[in-house]
Order: sequence, then structure tokens, then C-alpha cells
Amino acid sequence: MHPLPKIPKEEIESRLGRFQDFLQQAGIDGALITQNIDLYYLTGTMQNGVLFVPSSGEPCLYVKKSVERAKFEASVAVEEMGRFKELGEKLKARFRNGKRLGIEMDVLPYGLAMRYLRFFPEAEPVDISFSLRQQRAVKSSYEIEQLKEAAKMVHQVIESLPKMIRPGVSELELAANIEYQLRKMGNYGLYRMRAYNQELVLGMVASGAAAATPTYFDGPAGGLGLSTAHPQGASRKILAVGEPILVDISSVWEGYIVDQTRLVVIGDLEKDLEQAYQVARQILKEVEQMGKPGVAWQDLYLRACEMVKEEGLEKHFMGYCADQARFLGHGVGLELDELPVLAKGFDQPLEEGMVIAIEPKFTFPQRGVVGIENTYLVTKNGLEAITFASEEIIRLDL
Amino acid sequence: MHPLPKIPKEEIESRLGRFQDFLQQAGIDGALITQNIDLYYLTGTMQNGVLFVPSSGEPCLYVKKSVERAKFEASVAVEEMGRFKELGEKLKARFRNGKRLGIEMDVLPYGLAMRYLRFFPEAEPVDISFSLRQQRAVKSSYEIEQLKEAAKMVHQVIESLPKMIRPGVSELELAANIEYQLRKMGNYGLYRMRAYNQELVLGMVASGAAAATPTYFDGPAGGLGLSTAHPQGASRKILAVGEPILVDISSVWEGYIVDQTRLVVIGDLEKDLEQAYQVARQILKEVEQMGKPGVAWQDLYLRACEMVKEEGLEKHFMGYCADQARFLGHGVGLELDELPVLAKGFDQPLEEGMVIAIEPKFTFPQRGVVGIENTYLVTKNGLEAITFASEEIIRLDL
Repeated sequence: MHPLPKIPKEEIESRLGRFQDFLQQAGIDGALITQNIDLYYLTGTMQNGVLFVPSSGEPCLYVKKSVERAKFEASVAVEEMGRFKELGEKLKARFRNGKRLGIEMDVLPYGLAMRYLRFFPEAEPVDISFSLRQQRAVKSSYEIEQLKEAAKMVHQVIESLPKMIRPGVSELELAANIEYQLRKMGNYGLYRMRAYNQELVLGMVASGAAAATPTYFDGPAGGLGLSTAHPQGASRKILAVGEPILVDISSVWEGYIVDQTRLVVIGDLEKDLEQAYQVARQILKEVEQMGKPGVAWQDLYLRACEMVKEEGLEKHFMGYCADQARFLGHGVGLELDELPVLAKGFDQPLEEGMVIAIEPKFTFPQRGVVGIENTYLVTKNGLEAITFASEEIIRLDL
Repeated sequence: MHPLPKIPKEEIESRLGRFQDFLQQAGIDGALITQNIDLYYLTGTMQNGVLFVPSSGEPCLYVKKSVERAKFEASVAVEEMGRFKELGEKLKARFRNGKRLGIEMDVLPYGLAMRYLRFFPEAEPVDISFSLRQQRAVKSSYEIEQLKEAAKMVHQVIESLPKMIRPGVSELELAANIEYQLRKMGNYGLYRMRAYNQELVLGMVASGAAAATPTYFDGPAGGLGLSTAHPQGASRKILAVGEPILVDISSVWEGYIVDQTRLVVIGDLEKDLEQAYQVARQILKEVEQMGKPGVAWQDLYLRACEMVKEEGLEKHFMGYCADQARFLGHGVGLELDELPVLAKGFDQPLEEGMVIAIEPKFTFPQRGVVGIENTYLVTKNGLEAITFASEEIIRLDL
């Protein structure tokens, strides 16, 4: 039907196998998967449909549109969804007399959930999102390959920043040029996020006071943005000499997202901002050494907080005062906000195959944001950077 | 705090007033608004928070991040959200002994809805989404101004298509160039959609067989896309002589989206495709005449279906056979998939101030998609096009 590469069949079988293992261990009789990313991860296609995964036996994807494309792309059985009531009959037959039904409570809209749950009046709905996200956090070699391709794309952009940045260029023009370069390489142009109401265009390409403008975005850098309707990231502000220019950007290859930040300055940074940047680098070096299978997610964040305190930079870490984000890093993959979350309260262990963007940053109101970010793979020997640009500040002559 | 234009205070007051009128008429004691677009529409800010709107009295926006920015931008009272439990106490106090609580059932995730509803164990949840979307469908003069700005942006792109299109250029390169041009004008780069699992990058810039590849997207044109993880819109296919090149693109200004489609061909189209394009134009002319306040939304679709039948093009209309979309047009505004929907079953009347993208299209498997789209304002005298490019096929020399 079409020439696009498909996710290998064995990959899908292995993912489904692991998910069914989880269902069995958790005493969940079957799960109804509805969100496009979860569907893609478990079937190999992102067509409009719902996937029923029994705790044992064959899963089935019920598709509304396009059945033809889903049949071609998916590595699971595909059936036409038909009318909603018919779907209900089919699902009930599959669930048999199951007692506990898994659903994605963090993304499935309430109204749609209620319609599905009416098919199973005897069943207890159970949230499977966190567990599926935990499974997705551990990447296969196929997934790591795609992430490494994405990292090459973002690296090319970092390399060409000196050609794009000069006084008089606006944040918007810089963002436009970065997006253009990425897009021609095959970047999707949309960075999927799972959290309700979160969205991202490219990342945070922002400078000086504009970068320090607080936002709703659940991350360390904010950004003035283009309007109150687009209140984050690049604005129309003109890049100026001596201010921190934060280039926090992502790229996407075959659905997989990599995240990286570098800092640029035209001329020289003020001393305290330069020092804060060096603290961010030290934090990165420190947690690079700590990050090994078995270490708790929160330990990296807590260690960073200690180092920040020693430097007296608590007010500035990951946003300013009331607008601080309370984490040090996040998993990346098919979504930008994957597990693990490096934050207090998460005592789960790092596992081999997890991929994490770690991004220590400091915000100085009216002056800017400084910091650095790499994406890392957790290997049995520790963290291995997937992004590979120089970690020095990119200094441009006046 | 920042120099971005704000939505006029009177505009927000009028929106809230209309929404409270609806709550009173529907016997709903208060509504909890959570989705970023609805929040922006009713408050003027898109910060992370929830808005409580009582059926009468002062609404209050409870903000998590950024309180400072929300206070600056919003035209309603803003309070710090605090911990989730504290939010519950505040909301309960506001709701008093209300019986019916409005929530956005089409977008609010199930898990979050359950957490909110636990604050109101006695209350009956009621879906307010459709009514709020009906209100939002009728645009104010402020909103129409923003939409007209967006239309100017997309018009500039249409004008420069002849410079961007030639044999050997890929769909991806063409999309990249269009996005780059729009972005430099201040385009946001993200086209918000309300429907679960729907997303869009730019639109459908697609040619020949690739354009006719069916997708999950709830629209007439599909597109091969870049991968099974990005299965719609522009692909790496090279533009060729004699095939239809569909340029279905959107632009965003101050959050407001306009949608337009034009058809390009290098050399000549085959006769039946050319004829189908002319039928699409005739449908557009016909519904342009019909579209007046008081006419049912579905009437425009049903009339189009009649005309399609007369031409024997039923199999090709709005997608091919099983993969047809069953509508002729959709409202646009802060979201791309607003009301009204021009589709069977919607007997609600058109109203002055509604803004609708009407997009008759025909899909020919292996050969391409032809069609046209304008965005219209419903005035008391009928439809007035907001998009204003020539409706002829854009014919380029070999």
C-alpha cells in the first residue's frame, strides 16, 4: 500500500507480551487502549481505533478509519469498528466475564470513558497508564536507533547556530530558521505531549528577559511567546549583545523525540550568569556519574538540589521562586513527557534502556535563563549521552 | 509585566455573561472549566489553572502556574490554586449546595474528572462542552479581526506558491517552505484541535497518489506522511508533472486559525480530475448562496451530496469509499475543529458571526485529491469569504 518503514513485527509482539505480563500480574482481565501514541506503540499503526488487549490471548484493533491502512501497518489483528453499539458487543464478547478493565485514565476524556464503561457495567475500571508508561520508558534497540537518528538532526542545528544568530535577529526568526532546517531533514514539526493542556512548538528559543517570562509550561524555561494565546517559547524580541540566548530544542524521527539545550551569547555574559551556567554543567557531570540502573529517579533531583543550595541558587533553579518546575529531567520517546521523571517522590529505580533528558537550568528575572540539557541512555554501566554537541557556551563575536 | 496585546476586558465580560446566561437557562449551578482553550476564551489568559463559573456572581480562576502572568493577563479574579485539597475546599465553598455541575466531558481526562467530582459528591455532572462550543462558534468583531489577519498570512503563501513549486521538489520541501514563510510572519506553528487524538502540522500539502493515501485524520484529504508515526500530510514524495498538488493550509494569528485550500498543477490535469475540481467549485458557489442565518448546518452538506450524486462522484467525495469523511465544512477559531459542523444530523441554524471553512474535495485512489476551500463569515446577508485568493487552479508551466 505504501513505502513507509513499519515497526518490526517482533518488536510489536514483544511489547504486547510485556504488557500482557503486566496485566496478569496486576490481576487486570483486559485493557482498552485508545490514545494514538499508546495505540501506535502496541500495534504499529496510528489509525483511528481502539485496541482491546486481553490478559492472555490475541489482542484486536477495532478501526474506524482507515481500516485499509491499519491492516497494512499493524502487527495485530484488525477489524472494522462498525457502529458504536456493535463495537460494544464485540468488546463484551472479548472481555467475557472479566472483573477489572484497564483504561488510560490520564488521557481518555471523561465522556468517552463513560460511553466505553457502559459496555462493562460489572467491571471495575483500573488505570493502566502509569504502568504502560513505565514499560514504554524502557527502550528497545529499535527505539534507541530512532532516538539516535533524531539526535543527529538536532546536532546539525546546534552546529549551525553561529550562522543563524547575530544582533538584530528576533527570537521568532531564529526559531523559524531552526524549524526550517529541521523540517527539511524530515522533522515532524509537532512534539507530542501526554499531559493535559501541555503543548510545544520546537522548544524554548528565547533570550534575555523574554526567556525569563514565566509560563504555564511545566518546564524550567518559559518564554514570552507570540501572544497571550501562544504564551511560551519564541517571541518577537530582538537578540541582543551580552544576554543569554537559550536554545532548547527537540527533533523527531519516526515518532521518537530527542531534547537538547545549548546556551549562546554574543559577546560576554555577566559573571553571575556565567557562573550559574557552570553550576548547571557541574550538576550535569555529577548526575551523569550517579545515573545507573538501580538508582532511584528522585536521587538525581535531590542531589542537584543539594548542589544548588551549596551555591545559593535555590531561588533560581528550574524557574524563579513561585514559578519553579520541581524536576531535573524527564523521559523522552514517542512523547516528550515520558517516564522516568527525575523528581521528589519518585523512588522507582532507573533501568537499563531508559532514555532521559536532563536539564539543569537557572532563571534570572529580567535577565534570562542559563542552562544545559542532554538526552541520555541508561546503560548497565551508567548514562551514555545520545546528544553530543560541545557543552561549552557558544560564544559569538560582536 | 509584558508587552503582548491582551483580549479587551469588555470582550471577556461579554463572553462570561453569555456563558452564565446559558448556565441559568440550562439549570446548571456552576461550571468547572479546565481546558486551555476554553480557559483562554473565558479569561484572557492560558496559564495552568481551573476556572469556576457560578451561574451568577463572580467567576474565579485558580492558578497553579504562572499566578503572576495570569494576574496580569486575565480579566477575571485570579487566586493561587494551592494544594489540590485546598482547591477542593475553595470550589465547594463557591458551589455552595449546587445540584448540577458543568464540566467539559469531551476533553477533560477521566482520571482528573473523577478527582474533581469527588469534591462534589452530591452534584450531578453535566456536559457543557457542546454549549460552550456553540457560544464560541459565534465570533465577536474582535475575533473576526484576528481571523482576517490570519487570512492575510495564508494569502501571501498562496500568492508565492508558483515560486515554490516545480518538478523535483518534494512535498516535504514544499511544506517546509510554506511553514517557514508563515512562521516568519508570526504564525504559531501549532494548529489546535479539540477532538481526541486529532493533530495537525500545517495542513495537507500532498500530491498525486500520496495525497490519496487514506489516514486516521477526520478530514477529506489524507496524505502519506513521513512515517507510520506521522501518518498524514506531507511525505517525501517528489512533485510531478500533471498531477494534482493539494495545498490545504492553515495560519494562526493571536490564536485564531483560518483554513484554505488551493490546487496546483504543473502542466495539465487529466480531464476527469479537472472536471471534479470544477464540480467542487460549483458546490462552493452553490453553498455560498445558501449559507444564511437560519439555514440548518446540515442543509449545506445535503445539498452538496445531491450535486455530487448528479455528477456520479459519490465514491470520491470527501475521501474514497470506506474512508470518506462525512461533512462539508467546519467552524474555525481558537480550534481548527469548531462548530458549526456541516454534516447530516446537525439541524441547528447558522447564525450571524459564525466562521466556517467549507472544503468540497474529491479523492481518486493512486491519482490524487482535487478540491478547494475557503473560510467564510456568516453575515446577515449571507456568506462573506475571509480568504480571498483566486479560485482558479494554479497552473504552472513545465
